[in-house]
Parts: sequence; structure tokens; C-alpha cells
Amino acid sequence: MSAPVYDRIALIGLGLIASSMYWAIKRAGLAQEVTGFAKSAESRATARRIGLCDRVCESAAEAVEGADLVVLCVPVGAMGRVAAEIAPHLKVGATVSDVGSVKRSVVEQVGPHLPEGVHFVPAHPIAGTEHSGPESGFATLFDNRWCLLVPVEGTDPEAVQCLRTLWEGMGAKVDEMTADHHDLVLAVTSHAPHLIAYTMVGVADDLQRVTDGEVINYSAAGFRDFTRIAASDPTMWRDVFLTNKEATLEILGRFTEELFALQRAIRTGDGDHLHEYFTRTRAIRRGIIDAGQDTAAPNFGRETTQ
Amino acid sequence: MSAPVYDRIALIGLGLIASSMYWAIKRAGLAQEVTGFAKSAESRATARRIGLCDRVCESAAEAVEGADLVVLCVPVGAMGRVAAEIAPHLKVGATVSDVGSVKRSVVEQVGPHLPEGVHFVPAHPIAGTEHSGPESGFATLFDNRWCLLVPVEGTDPEAVQCLRTLWEGMGAKVDEMTADHHDLVLAVTSHAPHLIAYTMVGVADDLQRVTDGEVINYSAAGFRDFTRIAASDPTMWRDVFLTNKEATLEILGRFTEELFALQRAIRTGDGDHLHEYFTRTRAIRRGIIDAGQDTAAPNFGRETTQ
Repeated sequence: MSAPVYDRIALIGLGLIASSMYWAIKRAGLAQEVTGFAKSAESRATARRIGLCDRVCESAAEAVEGADLVVLCVPVGAMGRVAAEIAPHLKVGATVSDVGSVKRSVVEQVGPHLPEGVHFVPAHPIAGTEHSGPESGFATLFDNRWCLLVPVEGTDPEAVQCLRTLWEGMGAKVDEMTADHHDLVLAVTSHAPHLIAYTMVGVADDLQRVTDGEVINYSAAGFRDFTRIAASDPTMWRDVFLTNKEATLEILGRFTEELFALQRAIRTGDGDHLHEYFTRTRAIRRGIIDAGQDTAAPNFGRETTQ
Repeated sequence: MSAPVYDRIALIGLGLIASSMYWAIKRAGLAQEVTGFAKSAESRATARRIGLCDRVCESAAEAVEGADLVVLCVPVGAMGRVAAEIAPHLKVGATVSDVGSVKRSVVEQVGPHLPEGVHFVPAHPIAGTEHSGPESGFATLFDNRWCLLVPVEGTDPEAVQCLRTLWEGMGAKVDEMTADHHDLVLAVTSHAPHLIAYTMVGVADDLQRVTDGEVINYSAAGFRDFTRIAASDPTMWRDVFLTNKEATLEILGRFTEELFALQRAIRTGDGDHLHEYFTRTRAIRRGIIDAGQDTAAPNFGRETTQ
């Protein structure tokens, strides 16, 4: 057990990330008390049933009352509204953070609402699964994953350091970068791939109607990995694309350009071009395994399913 | 142990599929003897070292001599050449099959070389990992996966039945369809997704050069699944695209059309369109889990890596 980093932490929104944070905080004893609030009465009831949070509150205002750290774990599109709601109830000296997948938009939505004397340190843990809701969390979600902190100009270094200690205590590796740079990097590693996976699964669904479930039965190769990505929370992803519009569209533009070049190589039968391209991409996979972000076990170490 | 289905089976090419077949055949006792041949002397030496095949031969001709079943496990582009080489050495009454990911091209390349009295039953086990080579195989690769048989017109039903029994003995579920239909279904479930993953990984690689490994470090979400797909054998995939050109280009055309529609929704801020689309694709994932082609465990049941 580490020493507590904060006396009281408030989690606003109780989905996959917040519930994993709660279990990870408890695992390492990083706070004396964790309060929680979810907009949906059903989620609050579930949280109480499974013991998620020391105290589940009936309003965001109640949850943030007296909290030293408030973490906004709601879809990016809801950040501004929630910030406006909690702002009058924040304790002087408290830190507000978030876990949104887009950072420039969160900075712009949340920043203006926060009163003097409250620190603002946006953050983004790069971890997740295709599941969502208060029951989807688990204590090890952040182990050995990165959490990116995006402190705004003039932030108290001590507030940043405290939040870093919290994330490290939850198992994460921490890095800092600017909001714009974060949004570009994530457009490449996450946002564009998600949109592409959603698209391909949609195309297959159209075909499925004429081929009677074959697409589902014969999905072992390639398509199956796309469906996992494309099964992620629709509201979260809608907000990601609407709030990281520019970087996502830029990367999709590059993607289309490359795809057209490969399509032309197929059409003209340019096997050398294809082989060279595929050899290059194979090497990148090796880099990811070396960087510890995945396992080299075949099929991602998946068990054969029955 | 089942009764042997064939006295002697010859595996031509000793990569991931052939080596998995060998271990699966041995696990269930499906043949008295399995011979093997690989073009590369290094692969033959590896096979002998790890006990892959009862007898590793120095030529394809020697391996097929007296075999009741010959399975071509070479890249699709090499099927015609190998068929020409083995044709004079095939036993009367033998069955020739293959494991290629494209079927129309294999039928056209191999069929004309086969002498009278030899049965030809093309096949495609839909299973694989991102690894290749004689050491990558394992006995459970085909368990609960589909193997598609594509018998050509006039094939002896008994030869088809024997091959079906073999694949079922190796753990697979078996279905039959025409070559053209197979190639269209696979273009959707496998070939187009692979090209798309290769493309996205290539785009990220370009960006990586300017952002110093960030793409690799922050690949946990989305991109990581693409890299596994894009790490598959370059020669095999070059041949797939060159030999299933028409269906792949058709599906990529549909994909581009859908992608442009989603890009436009992002640009114009049409959140309802995005949310509706993502909700639909999420349901497809559920269908795949119900069909037993994947696990519902978060993150595909991957272990956290160190």
C-alpha cells in the first residue's frame, strides 16, 4: 500500500475508465475516500450494488464537495456541461482532471468554467476495452499502459506532480505533451483506426444481408479484430470524431491516398510494390511488441473459444 | 484416437498451416504417415530438428510418391508451378487439395495439370496467426474454426467426404461453396480488412518518423489490432491480392464510399449519423461472439504484458 495521494477523489461518470480507476485506487490505497456520480439512476444503483465507490452521490455537486481531485469521466461532448455544473461547488485548491480521448476540446470546454484557485490538469489514460458501463472496470486496466498529461500553461507544477503520482500508483507510465500534439498522435494511433474499423464492419454488414451469416461465421481472419474495435461505445466515439475533427480528417486524407496507391498496385499487378509495403509494416509490429504494448503470443494470446 | 482417414498424407510447403495440420493430424491419429517438403533447405532442416512430419523429403516429387492425399500449402502464386512439378508423380486415385486463401485462381492454376484418376478438392481453413514458418504451427489452430471446401464440378463425392472427415478430425467445422462465392466472402472478411490494416500501419509509420516512437508507445487503442493483421506473411498476402483482384477491388470500392460518407458526417458535425452507424456495428460484434468465433473477455482475453 502506498500513502494516499489525495484525501478525497470524486469520479464524475461511472463507466469503464472510472470504475477501473476506483479499483486501481483501492488496490494501492491512493485515496482516503472516493465519491462517485453517474447521470443514470441505473448506473448509480449498479455502482452501489457492486461496491463501486465509497459513496455514490445523487448529484455531481454533492460528489465534488470537499474533493481534492475531481476527475471527469464523461464523454468528451459532455465535459463543458458537467464543468459548469460542478464549478460552484469546487473546493479552493482542488485539482480538476479528466480522462477524455481528445484534449484540445476538453481544455476549451472545461477551462473557462473553473474558478480561481482550482488547478486544471487534463489527462488521457491510453487503455480500454470494447466494453462499457460501471461493471466493465477492473483494477489492472492501466498496468503498464501510458497516461498522457496535458497541463495548460501556468499550471502549478505541484498539482501536475500529484496527478502523476496517482496515475503511477494505478500502474500507468506517465508522459506530458501539449493538447494539439496529443490530438494528432491519437488521431493516428486510435481515432482514424477506429473510424476505419467502423466503416469496414458496416460494409460487411451490408453484404451479410445477402449472404446469410457467412460474414459472421467466416470472420476468423482479419475482420474479427475490426469488430472488436468497432464494438466500442458509440457515444464516446461520436464525440471523439466531432471534437478531434481536424486531425482525424487529416490522417484519413493520408490514409485514402495510400489506400489508392495500393489499390492501383493490385489493379496493375505490381507485386513488388505490395511485397515491399507489407514487409515494412511487419517490422512495425515488432517495434510494438518490443515497446511492451502487446504480446507476441500467436493470435494475441487468445484462448481458442468454444 | 480416430481411425486413420488416409494411409499417407503429403504436405507440400511447411509453413504455419502445414505445420499445424501435422500436429493436428498426429493428435487425432488421422494418417499412418505424413511426408513433407519445403522449398527452402533451412525449413527442411528445421522440420527435421523439431520432428515436423514423419519423413521430410528432398523433393516435392518424392513427398507425393504413394500419397493418398497431397495438400499444397504454398503461397497462392506458386500453386500452378508446384502442381506441374508433382503431377507426373501422383498415385492413381489420390486426392489433391490445398489451403490457399483464394480459390478461383487455385482451381485455374492447379486443375489443368492433374492427370485422369486424380481427385481435386480445393480447401481453405479459415484460421491463422500473424506468425509464419515451420515452427509457428500448433495442434489446436483449427479447433472450432471453419474449413471451406470448394469441390469442382464432377468431383467424386467420396473424395470430398474423406477430406471433410480429415478436417473435422483436425477440429474444424466444414462447409462447402463455389470458388467465386468463396472469393467474395473472403474479400469482405479477410482480404479487404488486411489491405486496410496494412495501409493504416504504413500511414502511421510515416508519421512515426517525425514523432519519435510515440506511435508505437501510444498504440494501445485501435492501432495495435491493426499491426497484428499487418504483420502477416508478405508473400502470402501479395499473392492473395493479385489473385483475388476483382472481389477485393469491389469491396474496397464500397469501403471507400462508406468512409467518405462518414468523413462528411464528421466534417459537417452530423453526430446522429455517426452514433447510429456505430450502434449498428456494435451489434455485429455481438453476432460474432454468439457464433463462437471470438471471446467476450475484455481485450480479447489478452494478458497484460510487461
